Amino acid sequence: MTHSPSADEDYSPIAVTMGDPAGIGGEIALKAWKAKSHSAQHPFFLIDDPGRLQALASNLSLNVPIQTISSPGMAHEVFGKALPVLQEILPARVTAGIPNPATASSVVRSIDRALEFVLSGDASAMVTNPIHKSTLYDAGFNYPGHTEYLAAQTKSLCEPVMMLVSPSVRVVPATIHLSLREAIEALSVAGLVKCTFTTDKALRNEFGIDHPRIAVAGLNPHAGEDGHLGREEIEIISPAIEQLKKEGLDVSGPFPSDSLFHEAARQRYDVVICMYHDQALIPSKTLDFDSGVNVTLGLPIVRTSPDHGTAFDIAGTGKADPGSLIAAITVAEQMAVARHHLSNGSSLV
Amino acid sequence: MTHSPSADEDYSPIAVTMGDPAGIGGEIALKAWKAKSHSAQHPFFLIDDPGRLQALASNLSLNVPIQTISSPGMAHEVFGKALPVLQEILPARVTAGIPNPATASSVVRSIDRALEFVLSGDASAMVTNPIHKSTLYDAGFNYPGHTEYLAAQTKSLCEPVMMLVSPSVRVVPATIHLSLREAIEALSVAGLVKCTFTTDKALRNEFGIDHPRIAVAGLNPHAGEDGHLGREEIEIISPAIEQLKKEGLDVSGPFPSDSLFHEAARQRYDVVICMYHDQALIPSKTLDFDSGVNVTLGLPIVRTSPDHGTAFDIAGTGKADPGSLIAAITVAEQMAVARHHLSNGSSLV
Repeated sequence: MTHSPSADEDYSPIAVTMGDPAGIGGEIALKAWKAKSHSAQHPFFLIDDPGRLQALASNLSLNVPIQTISSPGMAHEVFGKALPVLQEILPARVTAGIPNPATASSVVRSIDRALEFVLSGDASAMVTNPIHKSTLYDAGFNYPGHTEYLAAQTKSLCEPVMMLVSPSVRVVPATIHLSLREAIEALSVAGLVKCTFTTDKALRNEFGIDHPRIAVAGLNPHAGEDGHLGREEIEIISPAIEQLKKEGLDVSGPFPSDSLFHEAARQRYDVVICMYHDQALIPSKTLDFDSGVNVTLGLPIVRTSPDHGTAFDIAGTGKADPGSLIAAITVAEQMAVARHHLSNGSSLV
Repeated sequence: MTHSPSADEDYSPIAVTMGDPAGIGGEIALKAWKAKSHSAQHPFFLIDDPGRLQALASNLSLNVPIQTISSPGMAHEVFGKALPVLQEILPARVTAGIPNPATASSVVRSIDRALEFVLSGDASAMVTNPIHKSTLYDAGFNYPGHTEYLAAQTKSLCEPVMMLVSPSVRVVPATIHLSLREAIEALSVAGLVKCTFTTDKALRNEFGIDHPRIAVAGLNPHAGEDGHLGREEIEIISPAIEQLKKEGLDVSGPFPSDSLFHEAARQRYDVVICMYHDQALIPSKTLDFDSGVNVTLGLPIVRTSPDHGTAFDIAGTGKADPGSLIAAITVAEQMAVARHHLSNGSSLV
């Protein structure tokens, strides 16, 4: 007997965090509800201040009803007619575009509560709105960003990996928040092997790809031209690829990075492991500027986020594009469904 | 009285070199003639071995008549009915895909003759087919490539600059044939200033852009985030931009390179000065893989080339795509026309 589960009975809703309330997070969440309220398989709820959202919707003439809920489970019932909001009252007035350290504790609590819901199963995934790190630093939040904070909170053993997912391409920068010089120094066989393993596992378990095809970019022009233009391909990247192949992964490269991202090339792999931030982000954002999603792999939970920042310069103006947040929620849904199938013993792996 | 000059009376034809005869140069030149023989404002002629071209056309079932000419001027008359070829007899048999040092002297002579024709005015521009450097090294050609060879032959005072031109974007890598580490080391205020000046001048004189808008990419992720992710933006790139602005150039940046190449961003500039090879080539080849043209700026002559290599792996199979050579000839035509207008006193500058 086949049983086709409805979203309601099988899946928990998705928790969306407040992000910095002086940024565009509230606006894009309102717009995302408008875009998804009629079609989403999964409902989502926001952990935010209902009063400030109401005022924001009214200021921006966005016809979005807000309904306060007292538990994530209520989101199913509410979502079709209003944006469900779990109350996280802000202790200070918010001025669009001007970050205020007095709001920092609410911003962090919104993240903590989302995480608790996902860990308890009351939410199936979390999507984080952009935060402004220096405002949070002032309030004693000592992490470079969400990723590191969530890894610490979940006592994640495996180092988290960032993957950018857009309609055209998936890319993983093996090094992230480092200068280009430091990124080159940070490359290692062990690091590439770990990062690629985490990526392979996530593609199987959370993206439903039975046999992930992984392409690895070179570091240097023309992938080093047999050592004439740099030796990292010979000394670091190729040995990592050999090791991964021995472990049975479908990994190939190193490929010249300028020939890896045109349409025909993109048919040949499921993801590219890139050596540095811009090698991954240039093609992703060139192809899909407004619809890229940042996915954190290697955490015990599903977490995605839009790939833009707080955009203080346009906050409060109504100009914010919700495309990336909408895509982040959609990708989180898909990942949550794949995980769910997996834990129910389906044959995704 | 306005006078509309015909191509015949005003412009000299374009010289196309042989390139390595074991590569795809002959095939793409035959195909380019088929594509352009009925519509080209400018005729082109090849400096190559007519016999081997005849055999190649026959082997590949390309219906391209070959006609030997004794001077560039004859190309005008011939071009509509046959591919005009100035004879450069090969001293050895050519096997597709297998470079033969015995042909090196002819390959170099084809380049030298094209250059002489352009310098004398008998040709308006030269387009170079791909060469295989190590074969030429064996024959005593001691240059990294065409660009350096032509700079030396023309005793060019100004260091030549490479620009990639494709339908979507123009990019200039400020550093080229260096490992990524060496490219970072090679960045300097003086180098960026010179390279940008050469680019600005070429856009005015050879691309007919009265007021070139030049964007400069950062080196590091997020253009260094105010020094948190590297200091090259503060110490090298911004000072170069300030100096160029003082000289009256319309230069802006440094911009995060991942946000510079999507469609909306590309409307804001005429060219991007990039810090390293792949920062320029990734976006260009991602957007326009088969139609990029390599243009050498800062030479006293117009020279373009396709942005691919000899492609020995597919030579002789008929699979070679002539798109980039056709584009290279078209860009050379446009540049030659702009130069011509300029030297005739039109107001392009």
